[in-house]
Amino acid sequence: MASQTVVALQDEVNRLKIQLQSLAEQDSSQKIRVGDYLLARLEQLGANSMFGVPGDFNLGFLDLVEDHPSIEWIGNCNELNAAYAADGYARVKSNSIGVILTTFGVGELSAMNGIAGAFSEMVPVLHIVGVPSTVQQKSKPMLHHTLGDGRFDAYEKAAEQFTISQAILKDPNTAAAEIDRVLTDCITSARPVYLTLPTDLVYTEISSTQLRIPLSRSPPPNDQDVEKFVLDEIVKLVETVDNDAIFLVDACAIRHDVRDELDEMIRKTGFPVYSAPMGKTAVSEQYERYGGIYVGSISHPEIKEKVESAKLIISIGSLKTDFNTGNFTYSIPTDNIIELHSTWTKVQYADFANVGMKELIPKLSARLHPYQEGARQYDVPKFVADVPKELNDVISQAWFWPTMNTFFRPQDVIVAETGTSSFGILDVPLPERSIFVSQILWGSIGWSVGSTLGAALAARDLGLGRTILFVGDGSLQLTVQELSSMMRRGVKPIIFVLNNEGYTIERFLHGWERQYNDINNWKWTSLLSTLGDADGVLSRSYTVNNKQELTALLGDADFAKADKMQLVEVMMPKHDAPRALQVQAELSGKTNKYVGGS
Amino acid sequence: MASQTVVALQDEVNRLKIQLQSLAEQDSSQKIRVGDYLLARLEQLGANSMFGVPGDFNLGFLDLVEDHPSIEWIGNCNELNAAYAADGYARVKSNSIGVILTTFGVGELSAMNGIAGAFSEMVPVLHIVGVPSTVQQKSKPMLHHTLGDGRFDAYEKAAEQFTISQAILKDPNTAAAEIDRVLTDCITSARPVYLTLPTDLVYTEISSTQLRIPLSRSPPPNDQDVEKFVLDEIVKLVETVDNDAIFLVDACAIRHDVRDELDEMIRKTGFPVYSAPMGKTAVSEQYERYGGIYVGSISHPEIKEKVESAKLIISIGSLKTDFNTGNFTYSIPTDNIIELHSTWTKVQYADFANVGMKELIPKLSARLHPYQEGARQYDVPKFVADVPKELNDVISQAWFWPTMNTFFRPQDVIVAETGTSSFGILDVPLPERSIFVSQILWGSIGWSVGSTLGAALAARDLGLGRTILFVGDGSLQLTVQELSSMMRRGVKPIIFVLNNEGYTIERFLHGWERQYNDINNWKWTSLLSTLGDADGVLSRSYTVNNKQELTALLGDADFAKADKMQLVEVMMPKHDAPRALQVQAELSGKTNKYVGGS
Repeated sequence: MASQTVVALQDEVNRLKIQLQSLAEQDSSQKIRVGDYLLARLEQLGANSMFGVPGDFNLGFLDLVEDHPSIEWIGNCNELNAAYAADGYARVKSNSIGVILTTFGVGELSAMNGIAGAFSEMVPVLHIVGVPSTVQQKSKPMLHHTLGDGRFDAYEKAAEQFTISQAILKDPNTAAAEIDRVLTDCITSARPVYLTLPTDLVYTEISSTQLRIPLSRSPPPNDQDVEKFVLDEIVKLVETVDNDAIFLVDACAIRHDVRDELDEMIRKTGFPVYSAPMGKTAVSEQYERYGGIYVGSISHPEIKEKVESAKLIISIGSLKTDFNTGNFTYSIPTDNIIELHSTWTKVQYADFANVGMKELIPKLSARLHPYQEGARQYDVPKFVADVPKELNDVISQAWFWPTMNTFFRPQDVIVAETGTSSFGILDVPLPERSIFVSQILWGSIGWSVGSTLGAALAARDLGLGRTILFVGDGSLQLTVQELSSMMRRGVKPIIFVLNNEGYTIERFLHGWERQYNDINNWKWTSLLSTLGDADGVLSRSYTVNNKQELTALLGDADFAKADKMQLVEVMMPKHDAPRALQVQAELSGKTNKYVGGS
Repeated sequence: MASQTVVALQDEVNRLKIQLQSLAEQDSSQKIRVGDYLLARLEQLGANSMFGVPGDFNLGFLDLVEDHPSIEWIGNCNELNAAYAADGYARVKSNSIGVILTTFGVGELSAMNGIAGAFSEMVPVLHIVGVPSTVQQKSKPMLHHTLGDGRFDAYEKAAEQFTISQAILKDPNTAAAEIDRVLTDCITSARPVYLTLPTDLVYTEISSTQLRIPLSRSPPPNDQDVEKFVLDEIVKLVETVDNDAIFLVDACAIRHDVRDELDEMIRKTGFPVYSAPMGKTAVSEQYERYGGIYVGSISHPEIKEKVESAKLIISIGSLKTDFNTGNFTYSIPTDNIIELHSTWTKVQYADFANVGMKELIPKLSARLHPYQEGARQYDVPKFVADVPKELNDVISQAWFWPTMNTFFRPQDVIVAETGTSSFGILDVPLPERSIFVSQILWGSIGWSVGSTLGAALAARDLGLGRTILFVGDGSLQLTVQELSSMMRRGVKPIIFVLNNEGYTIERFLHGWERQYNDINNWKWTSLLSTLGDADGVLSRSYTVNNKQELTALLGDADFAKADKMQLVEVMMPKHDAPRALQVQAELSGKTNKYVGGS
C-alpha cells in the first residue's frame, strides 16, 4: 500500500499544477454562476439530495437546484426535519455530505437543533442559508425575518456556536474560495458548516476553473518519526501482555470512515473485537471474533468480564459520553489503554499529536499480523440474541428486540430513536454490511423520523437494502409530518411505532406515573393515509397487539419485501423498558437527583 | 388622574418598606423552593399555562408545575410549537406573559426560532431551560445533549442573540433576585428572556419574603419638563394645520399596552384614526371615526389619499417594517409626522428622550379635547368589506375575505398565518373587542398553529369569544401536530385551512409554476380524527368546494357556536392571492430580484 503521505503530496502537486494552468487561462476560462458553482461542488461530493424548505430569500437558488440534472430537491415539511434528514443522509452515505437549504432567520433558526446535533455527533452537513442581497445587508432595512433592530448578523453569531466553519458570502471574487474552504472543513472534520448565499450573488458569474480541482479529503499526513515510535510502543505492549489484547470500536471509526481499514485489521490480526454503542456496525457484527457491545457497567456480564479483564485495549475512535459508556462506568485502568483517534494517538498516559488513525491502522495491521495465532488463543463470547421464553402473549421489550433479529437482512439500514429503541437494539446482532444509525450523544427526540428520510434516500443512492426505523409514540409526534415527505419522494421505509403511551425513557428517569410523561394517543394506522396516501396505494399500516400477530407479520414475505412504505403500530406495556435502559436510568437518576422530588 | 410619577414613587416607597420589614423578619421568614418561587411569580403575573416538552433536566421542576393549583402544564408535541404557543398566549393575554419550559440543548434550540420571533415582534415570553446540576456544569462531563467538547455555555451564547435578558442560575442566594430581574425585563420591555434552572437548585429552599413585593410594570416616569414642551409643540402643530390631523396606530400600541389610553383619546378628540397592519384591532375597527388600514402604496386608494393628504399624522407605536408599510412606501414628509413610542417621542425632526406614550397619551388626550369640533370636520372613509359580485362559484380570495366579515363576532380572537391569510384579512373590519393576532414582521410560516393553541387558552382564561385561525395548507404542514394539543387541552378553535396547493405567497414572489412551491396534498379532513379524536366526539371537519357550500356552513348555527374543535378545508385556486399580497409581491420582487432567474 502506497503511503498516505505520498498520496497527499501527489494530490497537492496536481492541485498546484491545475491552479497554475487556470491562472494562465483565466481570461478564456468558462464562466459559471455562483449558485451553479456550489451545486457543481455538491455533485462532486456525491450529495444528490438537498433538503430544506423554500423561502423568499432562497427561491432564485432553488431554480438552479430544480433544474440541476443530478441533485434532487427534497422539500421537507419543516426545517428541523430537513436538518435531521441531511444528518441521516450523511450518516449513511459515507464520503458524501448532507445538505440543507433554509431561508434567513426564520428558516435557519428552526434548523438549529438539527445542526447542533450534527456538530455533537460529528456528521458532515452543509447548511446553506438564502439571505437578503449584499446591498440590503449594508443598508439594513427593517425587512420581514429580521429582529427589527438592524442586527443582520445575529443569526450568524448563533450559528458560530454549532458549526465548525462559516462563510458569509459577500464578494463574487472570493465566493469560490469561500465555498471550497467550508466544504473542505466539512469533509475533513466531519462537522457541520454554514454558508450564506445573498440573493444578488446567486446568478453572478465567476470563473469555473477551480472546479477542475477536486476538494481534498486527505487528513494531514502523520509525522513519520512519531508514528514509528507509536507503532513500536504498541507492538511492545502487545508482546508484554502476551497477546491478551482486544479492539474496542467506537463512534469516530464511523465518522472518520476507517471501516475498511478496520475490517482488514481485525481479520488480519485476529484479536477479539467489541464495540461501544456508538460504534455499532463499524465492524461486522457477524464476524466470528466479534463479541458484542461494551457499555461499562451496563454491559452483559460476560462481555463486561471479557473486556475489563483484557490486559490491553486498543480503542478506535472512542467518544466517552454518558450513554455510550454506561454513565462513565468503564472499569479499565489507563495503563491498559491505547486510543486511536482521527488526528492523535494515546498510549497509556502519553499523547502523540499528528498520528491519525486513517494512516496508522493499515501499518498497525501489518505490524500486528504476526501475532494472530497468539491473539486467537483468547475466546470471544458469541454475540447472539436469545429470544426469552415468556408465558404470556404481551409484546415485552425483552422479547421484542431479539425477535427483530430474525427479520433483519444484510445491507439493511436500521435507524433507532433515542430512548427505548436505541437501548433495546444494542443487544441485537445486526447483519453483514448493515448500517446502524442512532443519535446517542445528542439524543434529540424526534430526530430519527427526519433522519430516516435522509437515510432511505442515501440507501437508494447506494443500492442498499431496506430502511427500518424504530421509534416511540412520544418521539414520533415531534416530527411526524416527515412521513409525508417519504411517500412523496417514493422511499419505502418500514416504521415500527412502539405504542407504550408516552415518554417511557423519562418515566424510568423520573415521574413514573406523572401526567407530563403522557401523550395524546393517535390513530397511528391512519397517519399514512392522512399524510399523503389518501388512495391507499403508496403504503400499508398495521397494528400488532401480541407476540403472535407480530411473529406472523415478520414472517409475511409481502411485508418483508418492503415494496411500499409501511407503518407498524406495536402495542407494548407502558412501564416496560429494555434491560440496558433500566440500568442506565438508575445510574443517571443517581447523578441527577432532585432532592425531595417525587 | 393621578400623575404616573406619583404612582411610581408610591410603589417604590411601598417596596422599600416591605424590603426593610423583610430584612427584619429574615430569620423567621417562610422558606420556599426555588422552583416554587418561580411559579409563585408566574402566578402573580397571571401566566396560568406553561408550554413545553419534558426532558430529563426539567422533570423535577415539572413535578412542581403539575402539582401547582393554578398553573396548567400544556405539554406540546414539540418545542417550536411550544414557543409559538407561549407567544400566542402572551399576545392575547395582555399584562401577562407566555412561558415555555424546555430541556438543555436539544429542547431549547428547537424553540429558538419561536423565541426570536417573540423578540422581533416584541412579545413577552419567558424561556425556562432545565439544565444539568451546578456540579456538572463545573466538571463538564460528556453528557447527552452536550456538544461533546465541554462547551456548556454554547446554548446561552446563542440565546443572548434573541432574548433581552438572561439569568443563569447558579447560587440559591441570588436566585430570587435573578428571577425577579429577568421577569421585570420581560414585562417592561415586552421581549423574551432566558432563565436556566439547574436540577440541583429546583428544590433548594430560599426565603419567600421577596414574593410579597409584586414585580413592577411601570415604565420609567417621563421627564416632566420635556413632556410639557412636547405637549405644547403638538398642540401648536394641530393649531397650525387647522385640525387637519389624524392618528395612525401601530404594533407597539398593542405591545406596550396603551389600548385603553388610546381608546379614550380617539373618542375624546375626534380626530380620524387609521391603523397599520400590525396595529389592527389596537383600536376598535367599528368606531365611527376609524378609516381602516394604511399600508403605504398598498393601501386602498381612498385610505391612501386621506392619510397622505392629512397635514399632521400622530403615529402611535409605529414599526416601519417592509410588510407593515407596503414595502417602505409611506408617502409622508417628516414635517408632517409626530411619533409616540414607548420611551421617546419624535416631533417632526426632533427626538425627545424619556417621554413615553403610556403617560403622555392621557395628557395629550386632555390637551386635544378642546379641538374635537374642528377635528370632526374632516371626513373619514367608511371601513367596510364589500363582497364582490362574481359570476362563478369558485371561492376566490377577493370573495372569501369580505365574506368572512359576516361570521366574526365581538370578542373573537382571529389569528392569521403569514402570507395569503395575513394579507387577505387586512381589508376586513373586525368586530368590537375582537383581537387580531398575526406575525407580520417575523413572518415564520407555521407559527399561527402553535400560536392558536396559546391564543385559545388565553381567550379561555379571559372569557373571550371563539378563536378562529386562517392558515394555508403549506404552512399548516410545518406545525400540524399541535392540533393534537388543542383537542387534548379542550380548546375549540375553528381552523380554516386554505387548500391552494402549496406556498402561494412564494409563487407570487418567485417560481410561479416551480415544483419547489408545491406540497404533498393531505387528507385534511382526516387530520383531527387521526391526531387524537379517533372516536369523533371532540371535533368536526368539513370541506367546502364553492361559494354556496361555504355560505351555508357560515350560516349554520351549530358550526358558529364552536362547541367542538372544527377544521374547514377551503378549496381555493392555486394562483389566486388577495389584492394586498399581489401588490406587495410585486414591490418585494423588484428589490430582491434574481437577475437572470426564471
